Amino acid sequence: MNELRFTALPGIPMVQPGDDLAGLLTEAADRAGLALRGGVLVVCQKIVSKAEGRLVHLGDVTPSPAAKEIAADHGKDPRLIEVVLGETRRIVRRGHGVLICETHHGFVCANAGVDQSNTPDDEVVILLPVDPDASARGLVETLTAAGHGPLGVIVSDTFGRPWRDGLVDTALGSAGIAPIEDLRGTGDLRGRELVVTTPATVDALAAGAGLLMGKAAAHPAVWAQGVPLVGDGSVTGDLLRDPGTDLFR
Amino acid sequence: MNELRFTALPGIPMVQPGDDLAGLLTEAADRAGLALRGGVLVVCQKIVSKAEGRLVHLGDVTPSPAAKEIAADHGKDPRLIEVVLGETRRIVRRGHGVLICETHHGFVCANAGVDQSNTPDDEVVILLPVDPDASARGLVETLTAAGHGPLGVIVSDTFGRPWRDGLVDTALGSAGIAPIEDLRGTGDLRGRELVVTTPATVDALAAGAGLLMGKAAAHPAVWAQGVPLVGDGSVTGDLLRDPGTDLFR
Repeated sequence: MNELRFTALPGIPMVQPGDDLAGLLTEAADRAGLALRGGVLVVCQKIVSKAEGRLVHLGDVTPSPAAKEIAADHGKDPRLIEVVLGETRRIVRRGHGVLICETHHGFVCANAGVDQSNTPDDEVVILLPVDPDASARGLVETLTAAGHGPLGVIVSDTFGRPWRDGLVDTALGSAGIAPIEDLRGTGDLRGRELVVTTPATVDALAAGAGLLMGKAAAHPAVWAQGVPLVGDGSVTGDLLRDPGTDLFR
Repeated sequence: MNELRFTALPGIPMVQPGDDLAGLLTEAADRAGLALRGGVLVVCQKIVSKAEGRLVHLGDVTPSPAAKEIAADHGKDPRLIEVVLGETRRIVRRGHGVLICETHHGFVCANAGVDQSNTPDDEVVILLPVDPDASARGLVETLTAAGHGPLGVIVSDTFGRPWRDGLVDTALGSAGIAPIEDLRGTGDLRGRELVVTTPATVDALAAGAGLLMGKAAAHPAVWAQGVPLVGDGSVTGDLLRDPGTDLFR
Protein backbone atom coordinates (compact mmCIF):
# COMPACT_ATOMS: atom_id res chain seq x y z
CA MET A 1 0.00 0.00 0.00
CA ASN A 2 1.94 3.02 -1.25
CA GLU A 3 -0.71 5.60 -2.02
CA LEU A 4 -3.84 6.82 -0.34
CA ARG A 5 -6.09 9.33 -2.06
CA PHE A 6 -9.00 11.34 -0.65
CA THR A 7 -11.39 13.06 -3.07
CA ALA A 8 -14.19 15.40 -1.96
CA LEU A 9 -17.54 14.70 -3.63
CA PRO A 10 -18.69 17.95 -5.20
CA GLY A 11 -22.06 19.65 -5.25
CA ILE A 12 -23.93 17.90 -2.46
CA PRO A 13 -26.91 20.17 -1.71
CA MET A 14 -28.15 21.15 1.76
CA VAL A 15 -29.72 17.90 2.97
CA GLN A 16 -33.31 17.85 4.25
CA PRO A 17 -35.10 15.31 6.48
CA GLY A 18 -36.21 12.35 4.41
CA ASP A 19 -33.76 13.01 1.57
CA ASP A 20 -32.35 9.98 -0.25
CA LEU A 21 -28.79 10.33 1.00
CA ALA A 22 -27.45 7.36 -0.99
CA GLY A 23 -28.90 8.96 -4.12
CA LEU A 24 -27.33 12.36 -3.39
CA LEU A 25 -23.95 10.71 -2.72
CA THR A 26 -24.16 8.67 -5.93
CA GLU A 27 -24.96 11.77 -7.99
CA ALA A 28 -22.03 13.61 -6.42
CA ALA A 29 -19.67 10.70 -7.15
CA ASP A 30 -20.90 10.67 -10.76
CA ARG A 31 -20.14 14.40 -11.06
CA ALA A 32 -16.58 13.71 -9.90
CA GLY A 33 -16.24 10.75 -12.26
CA LEU A 34 -15.67 8.42 -9.30
CA ALA A 35 -16.83 4.81 -9.19
CA LEU A 36 -17.83 3.94 -5.62
CA ARG A 37 -15.94 0.66 -5.72
CA GLY A 38 -13.00 -0.61 -3.69
CA GLY A 39 -12.81 2.37 -1.35
CA VAL A 40 -14.34 3.94 1.71
CA LEU A 41 -16.95 6.70 1.63
CA VAL A 42 -16.58 9.06 4.60
CA VAL A 43 -19.81 10.94 5.27
CA CYS A 44 -20.11 13.87 7.66
CA GLN A 45 -22.48 13.13 10.54
CA LYS A 46 -24.45 16.32 9.95
CA ILE A 47 -25.89 15.25 6.59
CA VAL A 48 -26.66 11.77 7.94
CA SER A 49 -28.48 13.28 10.92
CA LYS A 50 -30.37 15.74 8.72
CA ALA A 51 -31.48 13.00 6.30
CA GLU A 52 -32.62 10.95 9.30
CA GLY A 53 -34.57 13.88 10.71
CA ARG A 54 -32.47 14.22 13.88
CA LEU A 55 -33.36 17.91 14.25
CA VAL A 56 -34.92 19.53 17.29
CA HIS A 57 -36.57 22.96 17.30
CA LEU A 58 -35.59 24.67 20.53
CA GLY A 59 -39.02 26.29 20.63
CA ASP A 60 -40.43 22.82 21.32
CA VAL A 61 -38.15 22.20 24.31
CA THR A 62 -39.06 22.83 27.95
CA PRO A 63 -35.91 22.89 30.07
CA SER A 64 -35.85 20.93 33.31
CA PRO A 65 -34.58 22.51 36.54
CA ALA A 66 -31.29 20.60 36.11
CA ALA A 67 -30.86 21.97 32.59
CA LYS A 68 -31.59 25.50 33.83
CA GLU A 69 -28.99 25.19 36.56
CA ILE A 70 -26.26 23.89 34.24
CA ALA A 71 -27.15 26.48 31.60
CA ALA A 72 -26.84 29.28 34.15
CA ASP A 73 -23.43 27.96 35.24
CA HIS A 74 -22.16 27.83 31.66
CA GLY A 75 -23.91 30.82 30.10
CA LYS A 76 -25.82 28.60 27.65
CA ASP A 77 -29.39 28.36 26.40
CA PRO A 78 -31.24 26.10 28.91
CA ARG A 79 -33.25 24.57 26.07
CA LEU A 80 -29.99 23.52 24.36
CA ILE A 81 -28.76 21.98 27.63
CA GLU A 82 -32.05 20.11 27.97
CA VAL A 83 -31.47 18.58 24.53
CA VAL A 84 -27.86 17.76 25.45
CA LEU A 85 -28.94 16.03 28.68
CA GLY A 86 -31.45 13.96 26.72
CA GLU A 87 -28.58 12.60 24.61
CA THR A 88 -26.36 12.01 27.63
CA ARG A 89 -25.76 8.85 29.65
CA ARG A 90 -23.32 10.55 32.01
CA ILE A 91 -21.63 13.94 32.34
CA VAL A 92 -17.89 13.17 32.31
CA ARG A 93 -16.57 16.69 33.01
CA ARG A 94 -17.94 20.21 33.43
CA GLY A 95 -15.84 23.34 33.30
CA HIS A 96 -14.46 26.24 31.26
CA GLY A 97 -17.88 26.62 29.59
CA VAL A 98 -17.70 23.06 28.26
CA LEU A 99 -19.87 20.06 29.01
CA ILE A 100 -18.10 16.77 28.20
CA CYS A 101 -20.72 14.03 27.96
CA GLU A 102 -20.82 10.31 27.44
CA THR A 103 -23.61 9.79 24.92
CA HIS A 104 -26.04 6.89 24.96
CA HIS A 105 -23.86 5.35 22.21
CA GLY A 106 -20.80 5.59 24.49
CA PHE A 107 -19.00 8.45 22.72
CA VAL A 108 -17.29 11.00 24.96
CA CYS A 109 -17.58 14.44 23.40
CA ALA A 110 -18.59 18.05 24.01
CA ASN A 111 -22.34 18.69 24.34
CA ALA A 112 -23.15 15.04 23.53
CA GLY A 113 -22.55 15.92 19.89
CA VAL A 114 -25.51 18.30 19.72
CA ASP A 115 -24.66 20.98 17.17
CA GLN A 116 -26.00 24.41 16.39
CA SER A 117 -23.91 25.22 13.30
CA ASN A 118 -25.14 24.68 9.74
CA THR A 119 -28.72 24.19 10.85
CA PRO A 120 -31.66 25.55 8.88
CA ASP A 121 -32.24 28.29 11.44
CA ASP A 122 -30.80 29.47 14.74
CA GLU A 123 -33.49 27.71 16.74
CA VAL A 124 -32.80 24.27 15.30
CA VAL A 125 -30.11 21.93 16.62
CA ILE A 126 -28.79 18.68 15.14
CA LEU A 127 -28.42 15.50 17.20
CA LEU A 128 -26.10 12.61 16.43
CA PRO A 129 -27.71 9.72 14.53
CA VAL A 130 -29.47 7.24 16.83
CA ASP A 131 -27.16 4.47 15.62
CA PRO A 132 -24.33 5.72 13.38
CA ASP A 133 -23.10 2.16 12.73
CA ALA A 134 -26.57 1.30 11.42
CA SER A 135 -26.54 4.50 9.32
CA ALA A 136 -23.24 3.41 7.77
CA ARG A 137 -24.53 -0.13 7.27
CA GLY A 138 -27.66 1.20 5.59
CA LEU A 139 -25.59 3.25 3.13
CA VAL A 140 -23.38 0.23 2.31
CA GLU A 141 -26.46 -1.88 1.68
CA THR A 142 -28.33 0.71 -0.39
CA LEU A 143 -25.29 1.56 -2.49
CA THR A 144 -24.47 -2.12 -3.00
CA ALA A 145 -28.05 -2.89 -4.01
CA ALA A 146 -27.78 -0.07 -6.56
CA GLY A 147 -24.79 -1.76 -8.19
CA HIS A 148 -21.97 0.10 -6.43
CA GLY A 149 -19.41 -1.41 -4.08
CA PRO A 150 -17.71 -3.25 -2.64
CA LEU A 151 -17.16 -0.28 -0.37
CA GLY A 152 -16.90 0.76 3.24
CA VAL A 153 -18.79 3.67 4.77
CA ILE A 154 -17.75 5.79 7.74
CA VAL A 155 -20.00 8.34 9.45
CA SER A 156 -17.62 10.94 10.91
CA ASP A 157 -17.82 13.84 13.32
CA THR A 158 -15.41 16.51 14.54
CA PHE A 159 -14.30 15.95 18.15
CA GLY A 160 -12.03 17.79 20.55
CA ARG A 161 -9.40 15.86 22.47
CA PRO A 162 -7.96 15.99 25.98
CA TRP A 163 -4.47 17.53 26.24
CA ARG A 164 -4.50 19.02 22.73
CA ASP A 165 -6.19 22.03 21.26
CA GLY A 166 -7.91 21.76 17.94
CA LEU A 167 -10.31 19.27 16.47
CA VAL A 168 -9.84 16.09 14.47
CA ASP A 169 -12.52 14.10 12.70
CA THR A 170 -13.36 10.75 14.26
CA ALA A 171 -15.51 7.79 13.23
CA LEU A 172 -18.97 7.58 14.84
CA GLY A 173 -20.08 4.60 12.81
CA SER A 174 -18.75 2.33 10.12
CA ALA A 175 -19.56 -0.69 7.98
CA GLY A 176 -17.82 -2.70 5.29
CA ILE A 177 -14.32 -2.40 6.75
CA ALA A 178 -12.70 -3.52 10.01
CA PRO A 179 -12.68 -0.46 12.32
CA ILE A 180 -9.47 -1.58 13.93
CA GLU A 181 -6.65 -3.57 12.39
CA ASP A 182 -5.35 -6.09 14.87
CA LEU A 183 -1.61 -6.55 14.40
CA ARG A 184 -1.07 -8.14 17.78
CA GLY A 185 0.96 -11.30 17.38
CA THR A 186 2.52 -10.20 14.10
CA GLY A 187 6.16 -9.16 14.12
CA ASP A 188 7.85 -5.81 13.87
CA LEU A 189 10.64 -5.37 11.33
CA ARG A 190 12.93 -7.53 13.44
CA GLY A 191 10.30 -10.17 14.22
CA ARG A 192 9.56 -9.12 17.79
CA GLU A 193 5.96 -9.67 18.70
CA LEU A 194 3.96 -6.45 18.65
CA VAL A 195 1.90 -6.45 21.79
CA VAL A 196 -0.54 -3.57 21.58
CA THR A 197 -0.31 -2.24 18.03
CA THR A 198 -3.84 -1.99 16.74
CA PRO A 199 -4.30 0.88 14.29
CA ALA A 200 -7.77 2.44 14.40
CA THR A 201 -8.21 2.46 10.63
CA VAL A 202 -11.61 4.14 10.50
CA ASP A 203 -10.55 6.96 12.84
CA ALA A 204 -7.46 7.65 10.72
CA LEU A 205 -9.60 7.65 7.57
CA ALA A 206 -12.08 10.04 9.19
CA ALA A 207 -9.21 12.33 10.23
CA GLY A 208 -7.71 12.44 6.75
CA ALA A 209 -11.09 12.97 5.07
CA GLY A 210 -11.82 15.79 7.52
CA LEU A 211 -9.01 17.83 5.97
CA LEU A 212 -11.10 18.06 2.78
CA MET A 213 -14.49 18.53 4.40
CA GLY A 214 -13.77 22.00 5.65
CA LYS A 215 -15.18 22.89 9.00
CA ALA A 216 -18.20 24.55 7.47
CA ALA A 217 -18.89 21.13 5.91
CA ALA A 218 -18.61 22.53 2.38
CA HIS A 219 -17.66 18.99 1.35
CA PRO A 220 -19.70 16.68 3.55
CA ALA A 221 -18.57 13.47 1.83
CA VAL A 222 -15.12 12.26 0.81
CA TRP A 223 -14.08 9.15 -1.11
CA ALA A 224 -10.94 7.40 0.17
CA GLN A 225 -8.99 5.01 -2.02
CA GLY A 226 -5.91 2.98 -1.15
CA VAL A 227 -6.85 1.23 2.08
CA PRO A 228 -7.59 -2.49 1.67
CA LEU A 229 -11.24 -3.33 2.33
CA VAL A 230 -10.50 -6.00 4.91
CA GLY A 231 -12.91 -7.31 7.52
CA ASP A 232 -16.03 -5.69 8.90
CA GLY A 233 -17.43 -4.56 12.22
CA SER A 234 -18.81 -1.50 13.95
CA VAL A 235 -17.41 1.47 15.85
CA THR A 236 -19.55 0.89 18.92
CA GLY A 237 -18.77 -2.83 18.89
CA ASP A 238 -15.05 -2.75 18.13
CA LEU A 239 -13.60 0.68 18.85
CA LEU A 240 -15.12 1.97 22.07
CA ARG A 241 -12.89 1.12 24.99
CA ASP A 242 -14.21 -1.17 27.70
CA PRO A 243 -15.00 1.22 30.58
CA GLY A 244 -13.38 -1.29 32.94
CA THR A 245 -9.95 -0.72 31.33
CA ASP A 246 -10.38 3.00 30.70
CA LEU A 247 -8.23 5.21 32.92
CA PHE A 248 -10.04 8.47 32.00
CA ARG A 249 -13.71 7.87 32.91
CA MET B 1 -9.22 21.82 -2.05
CA ASN B 2 -10.76 18.69 -3.55
CA GLU B 3 -8.03 16.09 -3.41
CA LEU B 4 -5.49 15.00 -0.86
CA ARG B 5 -2.87 12.43 -1.71
CA PHE B 6 -0.49 10.52 0.56
CA THR B 7 2.45 8.67 -0.97
CA ALA B 8 4.81 6.44 0.99
CA LEU B 9 8.49 7.05 0.28
CA PRO B 10 10.01 3.70 -0.70
CA GLY B 11 13.24 2.04 0.30
CA ILE B 12 14.30 4.00 3.37
CA PRO B 13 16.94 1.82 5.07
CA MET B 14 17.19 1.10 8.79
CA VAL B 15 18.39 4.44 10.18
CA GLN B 16 21.49 4.59 12.39
CA PRO B 17 22.62 7.28 14.84
CA GLY B 18 24.27 10.11 12.96
CA ASP B 19 22.70 9.25 9.60
CA ASP B 20 21.88 12.13 7.26
CA LEU B 21 18.10 11.84 7.51
CA ALA B 22 17.39 14.64 5.03
CA GLY B 23 19.62 12.86 2.54
CA LEU B 24 17.87 9.50 3.04
CA LEU B 25 14.46 11.16 2.63
CA THR B 26 15.55 12.98 -0.53
CA GLU B 27 16.86 9.76 -2.07
CA ALA B 28 13.59 7.99 -1.25
CA ALA B 29 11.55 10.82 -2.80
CA ASP B 30 13.73 10.62 -5.92
CA ARG B 31 13.06 6.89 -6.18
CA ALA B 32 9.31 7.60 -6.08
CA GLY B 33 9.65 10.41 -8.64
CA LEU B 34 8.32 12.91 -6.10
CA ALA B 35 9.45 16.53 -5.92
CA LEU B 36 9.41 17.66 -2.27
CA ARG B 37 7.68 20.90 -3.10
CA GLY B 38 4.31 22.27 -2.05
CA GLY B 39 3.44 19.47 0.33
CA VAL B 40 4.05 18.11 3.80
CA LEU B 41 6.55 15.38 4.62
CA VAL B 42 5.37 13.23 7.53
CA VAL B 43 8.26 11.42 9.19
CA CYS B 44 7.88 8.67 11.77
CA GLN B 45 9.39 9.62 15.13
CA LYS B 46 11.41 6.41 15.31
CA ILE B 47 13.72 7.28 12.43
CA VAL B 48 14.14 10.84 13.69
CA SER B 49 15.04 9.55 17.15
CA LYS B 50 17.45 6.98 15.73
CA ALA B 51 19.20 9.56 13.54
CA GLU B 52 19.48 11.82 16.58
CA GLY B 53 20.97 9.01 18.67
CA ARG B 54 18.06 8.85 21.14
CA LEU B 55 18.79 5.21 21.99
CA VAL B 56 19.43 3.82 25.45
CA HIS B 57 20.99 0.42 26.16
CA LEU B 58 19.15 -1.08 29.11
CA GLY B 59 22.43 -2.66 30.25
CA ASP B 60 23.62 0.87 31.06
CA VAL B 61 20.61 1.66 33.26
CA THR B 62 20.48 1.28 37.04
CA PRO B 63 16.85 1.33 38.20
CA SER B 64 15.92 3.51 41.16
CA PRO B 65 13.80 2.13 44.02
CA ALA B 66 10.78 3.98 42.58
CA ALA B 67 11.32 2.38 39.17
CA LYS B 68 11.65 -1.05 40.80
CA GLU B 69 8.40 -0.58 42.69
CA ILE B 70 6.42 0.53 39.63
CA ALA B 71 7.98 -2.23 37.51
CA ALA B 72 6.96 -4.84 40.07
CA ASP B 73 3.38 -3.49 40.10
CA HIS B 74 3.15 -3.62 36.30
CA GLY B 75 5.24 -6.68 35.50
CA LYS B 76 7.77 -4.65 33.52
CA ASP B 77 11.55 -4.44 33.29
CA PRO B 78 12.66 -1.99 36.05
CA ARG B 79 15.38 -0.63 33.76
CA LEU B 80 12.74 0.26 31.16
CA ILE B 81 10.66 2.01 33.85
CA GLU B 82 13.75 3.94 34.96
CA VAL B 83 14.16 5.23 31.38
CA VAL B 84 10.43 6.07 31.22
CA LEU B 85 10.60 8.02 34.49
CA GLY B 86 13.56 9.98 33.15
CA GLU B 87 11.39 11.14 30.25
CA THR B 88 8.43 11.92 32.50
CA ARG B 89 7.34 15.21 34.04
CA ARG B 90 4.34 13.66 35.73
CA ILE B 91 2.59 10.28 35.85
CA VAL B 92 -0.98 11.01 34.74
CA ARG B 93 -2.48 7.54 35.31
CA ARG B 94 -1.32 4.07 36.33
CA GLY B 95 -3.32 0.92 35.84
CA HIS B 96 -4.12 -2.11 33.70
CA GLY B 97 -0.39 -2.59 33.05
CA VAL B 98 -0.17 0.86 31.49
CA LEU B 99 1.76 3.93 32.60
CA ILE B 100 0.31 7.14 31.11
CA CYS B 101 2.92 9.88 31.41
CA GLU B 102 3.19 13.55 30.68
CA THR B 103 6.57 13.92 28.99
CA HIS B 104 8.91 16.86 29.52
CA HIS B 105 7.58 18.20 26.17
CA GLY B 106 4.00 18.06 27.52
CA PHE B 107 2.74 15.07 25.52
CA VAL B 108 0.46 12.67 27.38
CA CYS B 109 1.12 9.13 26.21
CA ALA B 110 1.91 5.59 27.31
CA ASN B 111 5.42 5.00 28.71
CA ALA B 112 6.44 8.60 27.91
CA GLY B 113 6.86 7.46 24.30
CA VAL B 114 9.73 5.10 25.11
CA ASP B 115 9.60 2.26 22.61
CA GLN B 116 11.09 -1.20 22.47
CA SER B 117 9.92 -2.25 19.00
CA ASN B 118 12.08 -1.91 15.89
CA THR B 119 15.22 -1.31 17.92
CA PRO B 120 18.59 -2.76 16.93
CA ASP B 121 18.41 -5.33 19.71
CA ASP B 122 16.13 -6.33 22.54
CA GLU B 123 18.15 -4.41 25.10
CA VAL B 124 17.91 -1.07 23.28
CA VAL B 125 14.97 1.33 23.65
CA ILE B 126 14.14 4.47 21.64
CA LEU B 127 13.25 7.76 23.32
CA LEU B 128 11.26 10.57 21.73
CA PRO B 129 13.36 13.34 20.15
CA VAL B 130 14.45 15.98 22.69
CA ASP B 131 12.57 18.65 20.70
CA PRO B 132 10.46 17.21 17.86
CA ASP B 133 9.49 20.72 16.65
CA ALA B 134 13.20 21.52 16.29
CA SER B 135 13.71 18.19 14.50
CA ALA B 136 10.97 19.14 12.01
CA ARG B 137 12.38 22.65 11.65
CA GLY B 138 15.84 21.23 10.99
CA LEU B 139 14.50 19.00 8.21
CA VAL B 140 12.63 21.94 6.61
CA GLU B 141 15.79 24.04 6.70
CA THR B 142 18.12 21.33 5.42
CA LEU B 143 15.77 20.30 2.61
CA THR B 144 15.15 23.94 1.65
CA ALA B 145 18.88 24.68 1.62
CA ALA B 146 19.30 21.68 -0.72
CA GLY B 147 16.85 23.25 -3.20
CA HIS B 148 13.65 21.47 -2.16
CA GLY B 149 10.55 23.11 -0.73
CA PRO B 150 8.57 25.03 0.07
CA LEU B 151 7.39 22.22 2.28
CA GLY B 152 6.14 21.42 5.74
CA VAL B 153 7.51 18.62 7.92
CA ILE B 154 5.68 16.71 10.64
CA VAL B 155 7.34 14.30 13.07
CA SER B 156 4.62 11.79 14.00
CA ASP B 157 4.12 9.06 16.56
CA THR B 158 1.47 6.46 17.25
CA PHE B 159 -0.59 7.23 20.37
CA GLY B 160 -3.44 5.56 22.15
CA ARG B 161 -6.48 7.59 23.17
CA PRO B 162 -8.83 7.67 26.14
CA TRP B 163 -12.26 6.13 25.52
CA ARG B 164 -11.29 4.41 22.27
CA ASP B 165 -9.29 1.31 21.54
CA GLY B 166 -6.72 1.38 18.81
CA LEU B 167 -3.99 3.79 17.89
CA VAL B 168 -3.89 6.82 15.63
CA ASP B 169 -0.79 8.70 14.52
CA THR B 170 -0.37 12.16 16.02
CA ALA B 171 2.01 15.07 15.42
CA LEU B 172 4.88 15.41 17.90
CA GLY B 173 6.52 18.26 16.07
CA SER B 174 6.00 20.33 12.95
CA ALA B 175 7.41 23.20 10.92
CA GLY B 176 6.50 25.04 7.73
CA ILE B 177 2.71 24.78 8.19
CA ALA B 178 0.28 26.10 10.81
CA PRO B 179 -0.38 23.19 13.22
CA ILE B 180 -3.91 24.40 13.82
CA GLU B 181 -6.17 26.24 11.41
CA ASP B 182 -8.04 28.94 13.28
CA LEU B 183 -11.50 29.32 11.76
CA ARG B 184 -12.93 31.17 14.76
CA GLY B 185 -14.70 34.26 13.57
CA THR B 186 -15.33 32.92 10.08
CA GLY B 187 -18.84 31.86 9.20
CA ASP B 188 -20.46 28.50 8.71
CA LEU B 189 -22.45 27.85 5.53
CA ARG B 190 -25.20 30.16 6.74
CA GLY B 191 -22.84 32.86 8.03
CA ARG B 192 -23.15 32.09 11.75
CA GLU B 193 -19.92 32.72 13.57
CA LEU B 194 -18.03 29.54 14.33
CA VAL B 195 -16.90 29.75 17.90
CA VAL B 196 -14.53 26.90 18.58
CA THR B 197 -13.83 25.29 15.21
CA THR B 198 -10.06 24.97 14.95
CA PRO B 199 -9.01 21.95 12.90
CA ALA B 200 -5.73 20.41 14.07
CA THR B 201 -4.27 20.14 10.56
CA VAL B 202 -0.98 18.48 11.48
CA ASP B 203 -2.66 15.82 13.63
CA ALA B 204 -5.07 14.96 10.80
CA LEU B 205 -2.14 14.76 8.35
CA ALA B 206 -0.23 12.52 10.76
CA ALA B 207 -3.29 10.28 11.14
CA GLY B 208 -3.77 9.92 7.38
CA ALA B 209 -0.08 9.31 6.75
CA GLY B 210 -0.09 6.68 9.48
CA LEU B 211 -2.37 4.50 7.36
CA LEU B 212 0.52 4.08 4.90
CA MET B 213 3.34 3.76 7.41
CA GLY B 214 2.30 0.35 8.66
CA LYS B 215 2.72 -0.25 12.33
CA ALA B 216 6.05 -1.99 11.79
CA ALA B 217 7.15 1.31 10.21
CA ALA B 218 7.83 -0.34 6.87
CA HIS B 219 7.21 3.12 5.38
CA PRO B 220 8.60 5.59 7.90
CA ALA B 221 8.00 8.66 5.72
CA VAL B 222 4.97 9.76 3.72
CA TRP B 223 4.54 12.73 1.38
CA ALA B 224 1.19 14.54 1.61
CA GLN B 225 -0.06 16.77 -1.20
CA GLY B 226 -3.25 18.80 -1.34
CA VAL B 227 -3.23 20.78 1.91
CA PRO B 228 -2.34 24.46 1.47
CA LEU B 229 0.99 25.38 3.05
CA VAL B 230 -0.41 28.21 5.14
CA GLY B 231 1.20 29.73 8.21
CA ASP B 232 3.80 28.23 10.48
CA GLY B 233 4.23 27.35 14.14
CA SER B 234 5.05 24.41 16.39
CA VAL B 235 3.18 21.57 18.03
CA THR B 236 4.39 22.36 21.53
CA GLY B 237 3.69 26.07 21.03
CA ASP B 238 0.31 25.91 19.29
CA LEU B 239 -1.29 22.53 19.82
CA LEU B 240 -0.74 21.47 23.41
CA ARG B 241 -3.67 22.50 25.54
CA ASP B 242 -3.12 24.98 28.35
CA PRO B 243 -3.17 22.78 31.48
CA GLY B 244 -5.37 25.44 33.12
CA THR B 245 -8.23 24.73 30.69
CA ASP B 246 -7.67 20.97 30.46
CA LEU B 247 -10.36 18.90 32.15
CA PHE B 248 -8.40 15.62 31.98
CA ARG B 249 -5.14 16.30 33.81
